[in-house]
Amino acid sequence: MGSAPVPAGVPPSGLSSDVLLVIVPFPRDEKWTAHLQARHPGLQVRWVTRQFMSPPAPLPEETLDGVSLLLTVWPPPMEPLPKVRFVQLVSAGADRWITHELYQKPDVIFCTMNGVHAPQIAEWVIGSWLMMRHHFLDYAEQQKREKFARLNDVTAEDSPGLRMGVLGYGAIGRQCARLAQALGMEVYAYTRSEKSTPESRKDDSYCVPGTGDPDGVIPARWFHGESREAVNEFLAQDLDILVLSLPLTESTEYILGREQFEILSKRKTFVSNIARGKHIDSDALLDALREGKIRGAALDVTDPEPLPDNHPLFTAPNVFITPHVSWQTPQLFARIQAVVEKNLENLSEGKPLINVINRQHHY
Amino acid sequence: MGSAPVPAGVPPSGLSSDVLLVIVPFPRDEKWTAHLQARHPGLQVRWVTRQFMSPPAPLPEETLDGVSLLLTVWPPPMEPLPKVRFVQLVSAGADRWITHELYQKPDVIFCTMNGVHAPQIAEWVIGSWLMMRHHFLDYAEQQKREKFARLNDVTAEDSPGLRMGVLGYGAIGRQCARLAQALGMEVYAYTRSEKSTPESRKDDSYCVPGTGDPDGVIPARWFHGESREAVNEFLAQDLDILVLSLPLTESTEYILGREQFEILSKRKTFVSNIARGKHIDSDALLDALREGKIRGAALDVTDPEPLPDNHPLFTAPNVFITPHVSWQTPQLFARIQAVVEKNLENLSEGKPLINVINRQHHY
Repeated sequence: MGSAPVPAGVPPSGLSSDVLLVIVPFPRDEKWTAHLQARHPGLQVRWVTRQFMSPPAPLPEETLDGVSLLLTVWPPPMEPLPKVRFVQLVSAGADRWITHELYQKPDVIFCTMNGVHAPQIAEWVIGSWLMMRHHFLDYAEQQKREKFARLNDVTAEDSPGLRMGVLGYGAIGRQCARLAQALGMEVYAYTRSEKSTPESRKDDSYCVPGTGDPDGVIPARWFHGESREAVNEFLAQDLDILVLSLPLTESTEYILGREQFEILSKRKTFVSNIARGKHIDSDALLDALREGKIRGAALDVTDPEPLPDNHPLFTAPNVFITPHVSWQTPQLFARIQAVVEKNLENLSEGKPLINVINRQHHY
Repeated sequence: MGSAPVPAGVPPSGLSSDVLLVIVPFPRDEKWTAHLQARHPGLQVRWVTRQFMSPPAPLPEETLDGVSLLLTVWPPPMEPLPKVRFVQLVSAGADRWITHELYQKPDVIFCTMNGVHAPQIAEWVIGSWLMMRHHFLDYAEQQKREKFARLNDVTAEDSPGLRMGVLGYGAIGRQCARLAQALGMEVYAYTRSEKSTPESRKDDSYCVPGTGDPDGVIPARWFHGESREAVNEFLAQDLDILVLSLPLTESTEYILGREQFEILSKRKTFVSNIARGKHIDSDALLDALREGKIRGAALDVTDPEPLPDNHPLFTAPNVFITPHVSWQTPQLFARIQAVVEKNLENLSEGKPLINVINRQHHY
């Protein structure tokens, strides 16, 4: 399909010969498609609705033919996509892409959805923290019994003066930090690479307005490194809550094991994992919970995942488990649209994109 | 008992002939008592440990004799306390004191514990809001069934872009506002008297460091008034969540009734009440919940209170009820001590106290 004439008032678009293939768990949004095509005359938009968690299934050849831009949650099957030059992921990390043919091609730009999940996932972290600290589940049980009386064996504990450690200070970690700070907590941040200057502490990925810590001004202390020793030093900082908000890579797999829970036992650190299940050795976590080495855990991700029926983690003490839902919000698609529009705009104008992936670190 | 000699290095105290009677639900704190007496040589400290919710019982004459300063949760029985000149309440409002003899005497200074309950009560408000918005109770039920699968009939909803209305912008309301702002929400504030200047928006009551909005800079809009019409106008502002954090007075009793729930039904405003049960007409609330006029409610206080066993509110849809526990925290006594120390210090030096009650409005 060649270039359509550019309507008056619309700036010329560099995407007039492009084909965008959208693979998302939403039905085709005709209004948004028209909006994109009005801004980028000539752009073809094809749409495949596919549920999260579905196994990749082959796509018809006419869907794949000529595709140059991809917007997708899951990697498409390994069909040839020779013309693709830009892949906009709908996830924060590329761990599922590492072996994909497209990902091996250095001239294909991969961008993440960094930032669109931050508000709701940080709400999951702080909401589950507050629910457990204030014993809401016990009171919900009592409400079911239709009784109004204090529970003498539990007392709510609030958060001012406590310390949150954020392992992985990206968009999600920054919004957790913002909420922790508002609760009166102190925040310690951990990053892979050193952030010793104000400039290096900034995060230029997408940020929902009014949220996060884009300038990196919240943490009282910064830690960094890729070694187990550097992580252990961070974990030894008397953290009241540790948030795992880092990408899954070879060096972060099972970053919390027996040795780390032993370190966390000094302060009985509460552990919140909204990143990937494989960050935590489940057996070590189970023992830490059963032995009271940590005060509790909130897990939106598990290893294995899905957690098999009747897995012992379900009934471990002081643990709250949800089935990888912390990313949910009706506002998600609007945020995804905002990132896609920004990147298509920048791509058409030859400007740098936002949320470009680091091919070495896969996030 | 006369004045003891003032040790070297201790500034002279104006409390050297005073008797402080402490009536709290904590055992006598010997260390703190010694600390107060070291600062105020000659000050006698008597201590009565009495549980919250206990009916007032007569106190022995030797306990009451000569008492000039009171630190208490509940009003003492109507025994004569002729020498009392200062009453430090351990509550945020004086609604239980209105008929008490001491309260009728204009030269007795009454101070509240304004501020010491703000962090934990605001955590209760935001924690219950997040728990309900993210359907944590449904997921906790599923966890009990030891299953890891998404619930198709519920989707979490996050808060950026939503609007919180705070009815009563005191210490608690301000910390709710701080948390709402961190979540990406907009805040509208309602106060009895007009707050049209930066100076009038300040709150000089006790504020736990790192929390609250002492300067009153968070609200995007301010509303005020004592009339039903003024309240109704505020309720009509498309609020997603309404927090009741106002004192109970004659003019705020049953401030939410059928007419108000009708107004709130336009936006299906979620209602969170951590103030007093009598702010809400329970029958009107029950109907609003049953008819889906509001999206839900979180109640730490009820009318009547305690809520009788098997009261229909317990099983109304989308309601979370706790038995007046939102003030709980192990940090409470340390905060109470900070306020008492500050006020005894100022009293001994003839300086203005903090948290002085407005005798006209009882808070």
